[in-house]
Amino acid sequence: MKILIIHGPNLNMLGKREPDIYGATTLQEINNSLAEKAEEWGVDISFFQSNSEGEIVSTIQESMSNSDGIVINPGAYTHTSVAIRDAILSCGLPVVEVHISNVHKREDFRQKSFISGVALGVISGFGINSYFLGLSGLVDYLKEKS
Amino acid sequence: MKILIIHGPNLNMLGKREPDIYGATTLQEINNSLAEKAEEWGVDISFFQSNSEGEIVSTIQESMSNSDGIVINPGAYTHTSVAIRDAILSCGLPVVEVHISNVHKREDFRQKSFISGVALGVISGFGINSYFLGLSGLVDYLKEKS
Amino acid sequence: MKILIIHGPNLNMLGKREPDIYGATTLQEINNSLAEKAEEWGVDISFFQSNSEGEIVSTIQESMSNSDGIVINPGAYTHTSVAIRDAILSCGLPVVEVHISNVHKREDFRQKSFISGVALGVISGFGINSYFLGLSGLVDYLKEKS
Amino acid sequence: MKILIIHGPNLNMLGKREPDIYGATTLQEINNSLAEKAEEWGVDISFFQSNSEGEIVSTIQESMSNSDGIVINPGAYTHTSVAIRDAILSCGLPVVEVHISNVHKREDFRQKSFISGVALGVISGFGINSYFLGLSGLVDYLKEKS
Amino acid sequence: MKILIIHGPNLNMLGKREPDIYGATTLQEINNSLAEKAEEWGVDISFFQSNSEGEIVSTIQESMSNSDGIVINPGAYTHTSVAIRDAILSCGLPVVEVHISNVHKREDFRQKSFISGVALGVISGFGINSYFLGLSGLVDYLKEKS
Amino acid sequence: MKILIIHGPNLNMLGKREPDIYGATTLQEINNSLAEKAEEWGVDISFFQSNSEGEIVSTIQESMSNSDGIVINPGAYTHTSVAIRDAILSCGLPVVEVHISNVHKREDFRQKSFISGVALGVISGFGINSYFLGLSGLVDYLKEKS
Amino acid sequence: MKILIIHGPNLNMLGKREPDIYGATTLQEINNSLAEKAEEWGVDISFFQSNSEGEIVSTIQESMSNSDGIVINPGAYTHTSVAIRDAILSCGLPVVEVHISNVHKREDFRQKSFISGVALGVISGFGINSYFLGLSGLVDYLKEKS
Amino acid sequence: MKILIIHGPNLNMLGKREPDIYGATTLQEINNSLAEKAEEWGVDISFFQSNSEGEIVSTIQESMSNSDGIVINPGAYTHTSVAIRDAILSCGLPVVEVHISNVHKREDFRQKSFISGVALGVISGFGINSYFLGLSGLVDYLKEKS
Amino acid sequence: MKILIIHGPNLNMLGKREPDIYGATTLQEINNSLAEKAEEWGVDISFFQSNSEGEIVSTIQESMSNSDGIVINPGAYTHTSVAIRDAILSCGLPVVEVHISNVHKREDFRQKSFISGVALGVISGFGINSYFLGLSGLVDYLKEKS
Amino acid sequence: MKILIIHGPNLNMLGKREPDIYGATTLQEINNSLAEKAEEWGVDISFFQSNSEGEIVSTIQESMSNSDGIVINPGAYTHTSVAIRDAILSCGLPVVEVHISNVHKREDFRQKSFISGVALGVISGFGINSYFLGLSGLVDYLKEKS
Amino acid sequence: MKILIIHGPNLNMLGKREPDIYGATTLQEINNSLAEKAEEWGVDISFFQSNSEGEIVSTIQESMSNSDGIVINPGAYTHTSVAIRDAILSCGLPVVEVHISNVHKREDFRQKSFISGVALGVISGFGINSYFLGLSGLVDYLKEKS
Amino acid sequence: MKILIIHGPNLNMLGKREPDIYGATTLQEINNSLAEKAEEWGVDISFFQSNSEGEIVSTIQESMSNSDGIVINPGAYTHTSVAIRDAILSCGLPVVEVHISNVHKREDFRQKSFISGVALGVISGFGINSYFLGLSGLVDYLKEKS
Repeated sequence: MKILIIHGPNLNMLGKREPDIYGATTLQEINNSLAEKAEEWGVDISFFQSNSEGEIVSTIQESMSNSDGIVINPGAYTHTSVAIRDAILSCGLPVVEVHISNVHKREDFRQKSFISGVALGVISGFGINSYFLGLSGLVDYLKEKS
Repeated sequence: MKILIIHGPNLNMLGKREPDIYGATTLQEINNSLAEKAEEWGVDISFFQSNSEGEIVSTIQESMSNSDGIVINPGAYTHTSVAIRDAILSCGLPVVEVHISNVHKREDFRQKSFISGVALGVISGFGINSYFLGLSGLVDYLKEKS
Repeated sequence: MKILIIHGPNLNMLGKREPDIYGATTLQEINNSLAEKAEEWGVDISFFQSNSEGEIVSTIQESMSNSDGIVINPGAYTHTSVAIRDAILSCGLPVVEVHISNVHKREDFRQKSFISGVALGVISGFGINSYFLGLSGLVDYLKEKS
Repeated sequence: MKILIIHGPNLNMLGKREPDIYGATTLQEINNSLAEKAEEWGVDISFFQSNSEGEIVSTIQESMSNSDGIVINPGAYTHTSVAIRDAILSCGLPVVEVHISNVHKREDFRQKSFISGVALGVISGFGINSYFLGLSGLVDYLKEKS
Repeated sequence: MKILIIHGPNLNMLGKREPDIYGATTLQEINNSLAEKAEEWGVDISFFQSNSEGEIVSTIQESMSNSDGIVINPGAYTHTSVAIRDAILSCGLPVVEVHISNVHKREDFRQKSFISGVALGVISGFGINSYFLGLSGLVDYLKEKS
Repeated sequence: MKILIIHGPNLNMLGKREPDIYGATTLQEINNSLAEKAEEWGVDISFFQSNSEGEIVSTIQESMSNSDGIVINPGAYTHTSVAIRDAILSCGLPVVEVHISNVHKREDFRQKSFISGVALGVISGFGINSYFLGLSGLVDYLKEKS
Repeated sequence: MKILIIHGPNLNMLGKREPDIYGATTLQEINNSLAEKAEEWGVDISFFQSNSEGEIVSTIQESMSNSDGIVINPGAYTHTSVAIRDAILSCGLPVVEVHISNVHKREDFRQKSFISGVALGVISGFGINSYFLGLSGLVDYLKEKS
Repeated sequence: MKILIIHGPNLNMLGKREPDIYGATTLQEINNSLAEKAEEWGVDISFFQSNSEGEIVSTIQESMSNSDGIVINPGAYTHTSVAIRDAILSCGLPVVEVHISNVHKREDFRQKSFISGVALGVISGFGINSYFLGLSGLVDYLKEKS
Repeated sequence: MKILIIHGPNLNMLGKREPDIYGATTLQEINNSLAEKAEEWGVDISFFQSNSEGEIVSTIQESMSNSDGIVINPGAYTHTSVAIRDAILSCGLPVVEVHISNVHKREDFRQKSFISGVALGVISGFGINSYFLGLSGLVDYLKEKS
Repeated sequence: MKILIIHGPNLNMLGKREPDIYGATTLQEINNSLAEKAEEWGVDISFFQSNSEGEIVSTIQESMSNSDGIVINPGAYTHTSVAIRDAILSCGLPVVEVHISNVHKREDFRQKSFISGVALGVISGFGINSYFLGLSGLVDYLKEKS
Repeated sequence: MKILIIHGPNLNMLGKREPDIYGATTLQEINNSLAEKAEEWGVDISFFQSNSEGEIVSTIQESMSNSDGIVINPGAYTHTSVAIRDAILSCGLPVVEVHISNVHKREDFRQKSFISGVALGVISGFGINSYFLGLSGLVDYLKEKS
Repeated sequence: MKILIIHGPNLNMLGKREPDIYGATTLQEINNSLAEKAEEWGVDISFFQSNSEGEIVSTIQESMSNSDGIVINPGAYTHTSVAIRDAILSCGLPVVEVHISNVHKREDFRQKSFISGVALGVISGFGINSYFLGLSGLVDYLKEKS
């Protein structure tokens, strides 16, 4: 079972700025922990981060031939990208949307998600643990289906 | 660590009707599985289901003195109950909101949640697994805090 | 053929207050007339009134095993209850929504019905006769189907 | 007692197209059944169908001098015609609005009715039976008033 | 002169939680002070608190035969309950709506009140004193009318 | 100078129904008075009334070759007809929009006019005198231009 | 018969700036022409212009004791002043609202009038002639009433 | 293969007015060119123009028995006619919607089309060529299907 | 303790017009009664009325150096004045907003208050008694604080 | 005559996924067919596909010096990209917007196009034929202009 | 070159209240600094402050004959005054709008400006420096034009 | 002191197209002038232009370690990019938003800025001078802070 983790724009800044909001853990450390957990569960895992909407679209398209599912934190593109929505629809893989903070407590324009409507499931507000819960939920789903 | 699971209106019908949407598992079976998992994690767990908004409000208030956190599936009251929102604020416990289906794929009036803005985190769309992910997220949060 | 008549909040006040709007007939008298008509048509009929949203939800759920259809006047819950809507969907019975007054002539917030979208049919504005027309429409529907 | 039945645009197509939605009964057959029922009740009944908003307006105006009430299925003009609304107000007769299907289950633009606010009562969703329930409701109303 | 004081959902928590917002006075202490003031003014006073919308509706209905007026703090039901609005209309008593905090400084969804439009008067923002001002305004009104 | 007076739907009912709103003068009497006034001012005047949107469109088109200006009371089509708006634009004549009652005091849907944006001027609320003021304003405009 | 003409903010600039929009006639010249016409009709006429909302409110209040009606061009306050609306209601005189240009052809925020709903009638788009038509309509109304 | 071309309200004015917007070609000339092109492609073609919504509805209904498809320029009825939408649904033929100008560059109320949602395809902005592109697209579609 | 009472636009008309709505008491009489009550409570009181938004703003600014609190009935400026809101914020005094009538029962545009969000408390609907309740609430607040 | 065909995000997936919606033809095959047709018409044609908004903007800018017109299927960027709109305005070339499916039948957020307002024309709903109709319309336009 | 600086309502309070938001500099000190800078640049400068909308309108009108441009901080009237907007249009001078704080970070009702649409340019958020940047921008503009 | 100037999409076209709107100065010439001015002020300045949202996000992130502030003209991304907003928040530097034209005079969708709410200040409408005023405002701010 192969799973791709996609981190959207500005998530490469994790642990470097605004630690009171996003914590002190860096993206590299999150990826390392996810990799450990994945190994424990016997899952192949790979990572991708980009600030570019187009590169994320292309990566989702390519995942079609080499992944079984995606965990994505679309960051700011959650609220503005129809292109990523279409890429998810087009690739046909189950996709879990995760957010570190509870977006429901933030600005109005963050209440609208173009992604949730095409996602398998959505998880938000558990800090970095959102990634682990999302990975767990996706793995369970894939095991049950196979 | 004591955790209360609250099931909102119509969830007592799980497994009895519309199995194509909500699956064939009954609420009793879900509770049994959650109890097993809780025991495994060394967590005290109790359950409550009601179709009455007022009873859910009262139960949340009482949980203040005998629980450390709540996992709630508010069902239809997600979209109409300011009273449950106020009860959550008032009790001061961390609350995780879970939904079996992905509400973002359903009617417009289900897009507004009065609960998400006061929840620790939100999980939706993983079927019955949403409960397990929510319980897991809450337990991790409480352990880290203590 | 068994039919349940549900009267929502404040309908127990019929005939006691505001006779210029709702007429001088009490709820008991309406039920008596409906019972007579039902007997004439060979239909088993029972009645339920509550001011509590949760009790109405529970009653709809229970009707699943002992009724063939429901005539409901949801009163004020017409405009605020997603829970009753979900209960109707869940019970799977044909439900006819009736209103004594023509709600389209009243306040803006009474223009939105959460119930109409899941009802078999809707009748409003005929005074107490709305109940008889609704019962008649439901009986015809059930006869044709069986 | 004289009652006019008005069928709005496209209703002349009943029974000829989309039988899964509107049934296989033609408008002529509906009119015949209504005429039989009217005869049984001792009611004079006449019929009018038009695809033209202006002709329906004129017919309602003329009914003022030769009818006691109107049963109208305004079809698509329900949602767009202020002129028919004004004609109903102007003629001063009691008017019952009927719809074959439950319009509350259809597109958003069918949720707004210019007619309901000036109608005696509204009936929708009972198939062709909506006409009979509407005629029955109107006849009862007129008898009680006289 | 008999006056009923109704406290809505979560007000039983007063003085137990969030003292910085709602103060340290418990609901029992408020009721005691109101009872003293009422005695001084020669007014019969009684109290009711419930978290259930339906029970509040029923209590308002019953007050019709044994009260001259109502002071109600509808709490969260202020913003969601058409049923309580209808009960107030139906009982025909003068009703004063009070709020401890100034709701105009809080969330958007607290700006809409279903109750204000049918109340005699509205008072908000004076802390617990809102109850005394409301009681005083109602007593003055009833004396002047009699 | 030739001027066409157009009366929209239901205006043929003037003086026959609802005299408390629209007065007791019939459309024929209004036309007679307008004709007298026109003769006094040396203006050729003609009249047209129709309940049909299409016929009004056609009449406006034909006026192009035999009129210098139009006074129109579009009645209910004021609020729903883009076709009449387009006809006015297309005919190129100056058009004055008049209303007997002050539409700003009526329902919300009468606040929107498709005609005002392409009219020379708008007059409402002077009763039948609105027609005379409109005719006067149009005649002055045409004299000044020629 | 005494009539007061009120010109709102910026109308003192008429004829001095933007002649292509508002024409080359100054406010003084308009007043002179109106005075001539009034004399011809045997009407006492007086004039008031102010850029201040408060002064216009005060002037309307004072007109109560020395005028029979008002013609007002509220200028920009048309769209923002509830205080002038209240003053008109309070003074109890018939008020005609006039506009030089057709406001329906201008910006969105000019589509809302706080004044039209309390005016006897509204006239717009006839250039300076709007004042004469408005005066004429008001005089006719007052003559008919007396 | 038989195709019906329908021209909506005001299109009979083509070439007679506003040539800078709609060009100098008359409707008759357009029909002649379309007839030539149709002959070249071996297609039977007929034409219909009306300013009346009702007549267009009736014509679409009748086309059911003698046409294989329709090219319609609904003109102003694009934005206001639910009746034409229903007629298209009811007749079951493939319908192509065409507009001479690019309606997306015009007023807001022209952005809403009741027709596009039930059309096979939509073409706008190519001047008279929109008709030829639309006819071409419809013919290709019908050939492929047969 | 010094308190300033501010009456907004049109309140100088109290008792002179529309006695059925606002009662027969004049503003002078209200001020006299408030002065008596203030003397009884040992409070210095002064009064200000203006129809001008700017003068009210200036008066609030000046109150900063010679008052301890303000009771204001902003009249129509409640709904349109950001300037008065800013003056209240700027002066730093506790301000109580009062209304004679229950504004929640009036037009839509009176539902929005720019003042409530910066007021200590809000009282409406008790007739002239609203002023006394507001003064009482303010005096209690100031005593408790000192 | 040189024409550039631009395919927006996810269109490189054509023929690879969701054949029931988008058909089985790949983007390469579409380009080959367009190239053949172009050759037949004596037109130079080139192609560009990208998932990146920025690259599409840059390509439109560069086309200014080497193309006579553009046919663009902006895909998801239709609904979110002001940058592409600005690039089209800036390059000054005639641009035809095409869509394979009828976007009017899809989600609400696909109803808004930032591109249509600056396009020469718009074509949607003819499947792959939309490209040929668009190319044909553009070629006709350019020939006529030259 | 003569430039007028206009300060709107409540700006006379600068430096006297809320120094954490608006700084400790008084309006007099700002004017002194602006006067120095103006002298250095060889510009005649004058100042005006008012809390009255009407006085600001009048001052803008009068500036027409004795100023070359205006720098205005409209304060709260930014969001409510169409009259000041019209005065700016009418006077024909270039006007620069400045704000001390960044209004985009404040309440929703401060997001709408009636002034920006008729201003030469807008500057906000630089504290008192906004005035100097605005003056500088206006002087540069006027020099270039002359 | 190091300052980064960022030019968003399509700004590389400055001086090459639409000189009547944007002037004849190229981006290179603007940068040269800004560099001269910066040298004069003793400020290190660097430049970046991109049509790609992702590259702008990355550049803002990197500026964190080598700049003291940013002047950005976000072009079309002003209205659509939450990602750039988040990058500004994340980098923690003071950012000044500039626009060459007054965006408040343009289309509706240009009225919403995702950037203004997180900017130090906003300047628009002074042509190329907007850059110099923005740079000046930022330099003053940084000097004062250090």
